[in-house]
Amino acid sequence: MANRLKQRLQSGKACVNGWLAIPSGFAAEVMAQCGWDGICVDLQHGVQDYLSMVGCLQAMQAHPVTPVVRVPSNEPGIVGKVLDAGAMGVICPMINTRAQAEAFVASCRYPPAGQRSNGPIRAALYGQASSYQRTANDEVLTMPMIETQEAVDNLDDILGVPGIDAVYVGPSDLSLSRGGAPVLDNDDPETLAIYDRIIEACNRRGIVPAIHTGHPDHASRMLQRGFRLVSVSNDIGLMAQAATAAVQATRQAAGPVAR
Amino acid sequence: MANRLKQRLQSGKACVNGWLAIPSGFAAEVMAQCGWDGICVDLQHGVQDYLSMVGCLQAMQAHPVTPVVRVPSNEPGIVGKVLDAGAMGVICPMINTRAQAEAFVASCRYPPAGQRSNGPIRAALYGQASSYQRTANDEVLTMPMIETQEAVDNLDDILGVPGIDAVYVGPSDLSLSRGGAPVLDNDDPETLAIYDRIIEACNRRGIVPAIHTGHPDHASRMLQRGFRLVSVSNDIGLMAQAATAAVQATRQAAGPVAR
Amino acid sequence: MANRLKQRLQSGKACVNGWLAIPSGFAAEVMAQCGWDGICVDLQHGVQDYLSMVGCLQAMQAHPVTPVVRVPSNEPGIVGKVLDAGAMGVICPMINTRAQAEAFVASCRYPPAGQRSNGPIRAALYGQASSYQRTANDEVLTMPMIETQEAVDNLDDILGVPGIDAVYVGPSDLSLSRGGAPVLDNDDPETLAIYDRIIEACNRRGIVPAIHTGHPDHASRMLQRGFRLVSVSNDIGLMAQAATAAVQATRQAAGPVAR
Amino acid sequence: MANRLKQRLQSGKACVNGWLAIPSGFAAEVMAQCGWDGICVDLQHGVQDYLSMVGCLQAMQAHPVTPVVRVPSNEPGIVGKVLDAGAMGVICPMINTRAQAEAFVASCRYPPAGQRSNGPIRAALYGQASSYQRTANDEVLTMPMIETQEAVDNLDDILGVPGIDAVYVGPSDLSLSRGGAPVLDNDDPETLAIYDRIIEACNRRGIVPAIHTGHPDHASRMLQRGFRLVSVSNDIGLMAQAATAAVQATRQAAGPVAR
Amino acid sequence: MANRLKQRLQSGKACVNGWLAIPSGFAAEVMAQCGWDGICVDLQHGVQDYLSMVGCLQAMQAHPVTPVVRVPSNEPGIVGKVLDAGAMGVICPMINTRAQAEAFVASCRYPPAGQRSNGPIRAALYGQASSYQRTANDEVLTMPMIETQEAVDNLDDILGVPGIDAVYVGPSDLSLSRGGAPVLDNDDPETLAIYDRIIEACNRRGIVPAIHTGHPDHASRMLQRGFRLVSVSNDIGLMAQAATAAVQATRQAAGPVAR
Amino acid sequence: MANRLKQRLQSGKACVNGWLAIPSGFAAEVMAQCGWDGICVDLQHGVQDYLSMVGCLQAMQAHPVTPVVRVPSNEPGIVGKVLDAGAMGVICPMINTRAQAEAFVASCRYPPAGQRSNGPIRAALYGQASSYQRTANDEVLTMPMIETQEAVDNLDDILGVPGIDAVYVGPSDLSLSRGGAPVLDNDDPETLAIYDRIIEACNRRGIVPAIHTGHPDHASRMLQRGFRLVSVSNDIGLMAQAATAAVQATRQAAGPVAR
Repeated sequence: MANRLKQRLQSGKACVNGWLAIPSGFAAEVMAQCGWDGICVDLQHGVQDYLSMVGCLQAMQAHPVTPVVRVPSNEPGIVGKVLDAGAMGVICPMINTRAQAEAFVASCRYPPAGQRSNGPIRAALYGQASSYQRTANDEVLTMPMIETQEAVDNLDDILGVPGIDAVYVGPSDLSLSRGGAPVLDNDDPETLAIYDRIIEACNRRGIVPAIHTGHPDHASRMLQRGFRLVSVSNDIGLMAQAATAAVQATRQAAGPVAR
Repeated sequence: MANRLKQRLQSGKACVNGWLAIPSGFAAEVMAQCGWDGICVDLQHGVQDYLSMVGCLQAMQAHPVTPVVRVPSNEPGIVGKVLDAGAMGVICPMINTRAQAEAFVASCRYPPAGQRSNGPIRAALYGQASSYQRTANDEVLTMPMIETQEAVDNLDDILGVPGIDAVYVGPSDLSLSRGGAPVLDNDDPETLAIYDRIIEACNRRGIVPAIHTGHPDHASRMLQRGFRLVSVSNDIGLMAQAATAAVQATRQAAGPVAR
Repeated sequence: MANRLKQRLQSGKACVNGWLAIPSGFAAEVMAQCGWDGICVDLQHGVQDYLSMVGCLQAMQAHPVTPVVRVPSNEPGIVGKVLDAGAMGVICPMINTRAQAEAFVASCRYPPAGQRSNGPIRAALYGQASSYQRTANDEVLTMPMIETQEAVDNLDDILGVPGIDAVYVGPSDLSLSRGGAPVLDNDDPETLAIYDRIIEACNRRGIVPAIHTGHPDHASRMLQRGFRLVSVSNDIGLMAQAATAAVQATRQAAGPVAR
Repeated sequence: MANRLKQRLQSGKACVNGWLAIPSGFAAEVMAQCGWDGICVDLQHGVQDYLSMVGCLQAMQAHPVTPVVRVPSNEPGIVGKVLDAGAMGVICPMINTRAQAEAFVASCRYPPAGQRSNGPIRAALYGQASSYQRTANDEVLTMPMIETQEAVDNLDDILGVPGIDAVYVGPSDLSLSRGGAPVLDNDDPETLAIYDRIIEACNRRGIVPAIHTGHPDHASRMLQRGFRLVSVSNDIGLMAQAATAAVQATRQAAGPVAR
Repeated sequence: MANRLKQRLQSGKACVNGWLAIPSGFAAEVMAQCGWDGICVDLQHGVQDYLSMVGCLQAMQAHPVTPVVRVPSNEPGIVGKVLDAGAMGVICPMINTRAQAEAFVASCRYPPAGQRSNGPIRAALYGQASSYQRTANDEVLTMPMIETQEAVDNLDDILGVPGIDAVYVGPSDLSLSRGGAPVLDNDDPETLAIYDRIIEACNRRGIVPAIHTGHPDHASRMLQRGFRLVSVSNDIGLMAQAATAAVQATRQAAGPVAR
Repeated sequence: MANRLKQRLQSGKACVNGWLAIPSGFAAEVMAQCGWDGICVDLQHGVQDYLSMVGCLQAMQAHPVTPVVRVPSNEPGIVGKVLDAGAMGVICPMINTRAQAEAFVASCRYPPAGQRSNGPIRAALYGQASSYQRTANDEVLTMPMIETQEAVDNLDDILGVPGIDAVYVGPSDLSLSRGGAPVLDNDDPETLAIYDRIIEACNRRGIVPAIHTGHPDHASRMLQRGFRLVSVSNDIGLMAQAATAAVQATRQAAGPVAR
């Protein structure tokens, strides 16, 4: 099956990615109609597990967004399960060494490129059942997270692992690992210098640099800086911000009786 | 148990109410921290059923919002179930006649005021188990919906039913029943005249006039007009609007590469 | 399929019935191994809905208890669904008139005895698929609740409806309807006189008198009085009492350090 | 949104309909790829409730089948909920009189044709949000069930209710109500004469005659007889038959060691 | 508790095993009445997780099939959980080395044979609570999967690990790892030679050779070849095949109007 | 956010802890009102998974108990998820070596103390969103289980790992690992000597000694012996004991008719 997110990236376009923390297919199908290029179900920090993710993937399938999943850790069982369920991209946290990157890629690729086990129970539904396995190694995006100083130090080693399609920067963990606060939209010069180094190293190898952001303004600046894929906030954060603003605007405009 | 929404209304303040269509306790507990006075779980048009509502009520309980539920229809079984689960207010659609209003109130009140059956399985957890039943008839807000021309015609009959605490105007159904389009935030003079008539009739009897709205500006105008409780959009609508805006803002600011 | 609860009642034995308010098949299968003759999934005041009930019925099936369900109201849709799911007895709240009793029985019986619709999706699994429909009208226990003064006044009318197997007394609602507090285990003489009248009227017609109770001592007294089936507390109540007692006993015996 | 099932029927083609009793979006999405024209989620006799139905509708949406739902009873709350969730056709059991048929149609149609309440929370996702309400009265198929002798006697009264698109024959209930066994695929002459009468009455009024069947051979004969839509067995029945056959074939072919 | 599957295998009989990919206790209980000797809940490639598996195990318990579970990976946490939930056999994917086999067996056996942690929360329900732990090491079937060339190369090492009861061949992964397509029912001579080698090695050690198959004819040939346990397709595959055939047969027999 | 359980322990008081095996927020919220200081959701041996745990944590939040979670194994993905969901204490089974203890602590602590990834999706709701990450390393209780002879042998090594707040003794596994039966409340002198050694070693380092027990009498003796936190039975065990006793008491008192 064709991966639209990959096609768009390959055509030179940048992608805007949504993020699902609410364990609800209904929230997912509505998000899928908001204009994102891809949407990631977050099994790591989202309130999601395997079956809620399946519900989200099912609910998104009728809409033109590419389904991505972030796994909770670099464990082959769950990587296999999210791919079998139809994820067309996998984000894996805390890839700090070449060995970890190799293990992650191996979990995502069928032999001989890796050790993924056959059984694409939902994934094969996306395309011709007989063709999924032939194209999956090419179509599935592998996206290890670069989110520690150790990972930055090992960047070339990690990027050199065959089969990596993108790296996904986790800004708040990167900041924590460098002794800072867990800030998402970080504009300090040292951090930006690391971002530039990552972007450059990716560009040298044809790998897509991606990053998580909290707001559209930071997201757009990151795209201008050279990232090719940005996630912006998530379902619950967008809802909470909008709800808080709606309450305040209503009370404000209505006057003292509503405060 | 004290009903904060009722207390605030009795103190002369107006209330801003949130609305839950997403069947997720996680969405509910986040909404419960956004500043609303009350939050309604919508079993009629929301993607909710009894058990998802229980999850929402559980998740909201630690936060200072009064739980309200809209039932799908004026059927005594479901009215009893939402009250037993801890709803402190019940909105019932399509109350068009005095007989319907009487049946609804009877479902909400213990004898001798009504025919509610005893068994407040979660509701009693909110307060002293031994006291819930003594105070429930006073604390639970009954809120029949006025949302057809027939209901407007029968307004005095309906408001005269003992035990009605508020009426909740459904603007889009009211418009449909009057031959219009299903518009939520309606400012045409005829509609506003009906609203004024409802507000006035409520005020004469000490009943709270309430209304559903789609945006803070309309909500605040309705409060200024005399409504005492307004709901503003819902969880999924706020999320979808914010998500669509975030995608567009990101693409716009990033330039052609992101379109 | 043979209904063991009915067989035991017909053999002249009294039955002790358990009660499920927790929406969990795991709680149900453990309750099913505690010695009850029957166990009722409570869709009215329990935290249960149709699918949690199915999970409870599935989990109980391997164990020697007869599955009973209390529906939330006398609505034919839900009565049909609980029977199709395998309930071998149905308790229906608030049967106050002969017409209500007739409607309830009609929902429980296939034609010509009633109007139940064919489709025993799980029920037929209990026995030979081809035989369920032939025996269901005989095996399924219909148990209208007598829980208002109105019902007591109409007792003979109600009991005269063909197809009623038992009446289930709801003590706290009966007390509420008579102007009292919602007490479960009620020993005042007027109440006991009503119980005796119900027992006697049932005995005259070969109908089983049943009652809900809160504690084993009251339950056993009700059996001695002539009731033939008693429910005792419920899953959550038994757990809460035992947990509270365990905490207190531990703190007490451990001394001041644990208070 | 265009209703493909309706379009196909209007083009003069007959339709083959699938049936979902398993409460699983995964089963639904696989069924949706098996070639059916429409698929019905059965809330009456299936092991389904509102939220499992939503999961099935979400999972089917990417596939070219029209979603239909059978409600458990002619209760306006649930009819509204299944339509809001996106059902493009509603089958309602036990429509025996003109009044019942009128009430059912009223629950399915927005004013002025009926009394459906506005709030198509998922349904509007299928098309342009602003257009759903304008076309829903035309696109949604109303399908009362004719499944008792009483309904057959009142056939012309029922068919004369404006807004009925099809009638759905329930063969086993029809047989039960006429004193027979609950047989699905019924070829006795009296039954076939009733079918012919229904088909003819439908054809006179441009209403689609539909019927439930258990096997392809009976289904195809019913189509040849004049029915325009047939359902064939259901998900669980097809699975059980195939599984039983697979076990037997394996044991048979493997020889004594496998018996 | 006695393990019927094990008893049957020990008596010299071959076993036919079913397979559950649908996360539904209802599908499971129906499969459990189709004649299989054992049924496996597939947590690896099935749309299953821990709680859906519990629902399947509960629903199967009343029926004479032995519950087996395939875990997603060789991780001790999930192996312990499936055993505690009552699995009487565990299939573990991708056991390629002796060390992996030892780790798997250790997860399945209580000390001193292994390192399983005590707490059989559902498993003890199957038998006498006090006896489960005494017999579990004998009754639980350990079934590592042989599904790579590496595993075949290490066969004797793997089979030599004390406590292995069976090996389960995964044909499509074995084919992939050997450079072929992911074919399930594989009859090429090289593959059959590997199967024969596995069967022979198992027989030498009293270990049961088992294999997954797609169709009854291949399954029976595998039994004739010497495998002692075969799985045949799965719930969803059997359903999809039967549904597709039913649609086609109906359209075919009905003629052009139904195409 | 302040951790009440930790505060109470630091004040010199002993704590009584509840235990949740039933996957139900309703059971959890009722347990949370029974007087426990903390309550642990058991993902290892309980019938719990991640989302059922979230439901339990949500339902407990309004009540004054500190939420604790036992993870199924020492795997960083699940440790991170339970903390993000709001666990204020984590119990980890089978910590037998210093290296395992270090890995567990690293999963629980943000850098620089460990490697926990940032994203406290629910945890931050408990307090000020901006402060959770600053205080979490101090507030979250890490509780490795000492439940094998190997762990006892390595006790000083394990206790020496910086960041361990308590050790939680698993009596039945400890007994199994020492060649005994899986007894929970164990009073044999050798076992008690081990307990005393653990208590003493903990006291030397300011670490809290904790233990699981089956009954209040043993629990209180363990507190008197020097343990500072005891868990007593669990939700399902307390329910089953109480239910069995209620049935027996009722039958006994009612006489022969009820046996």
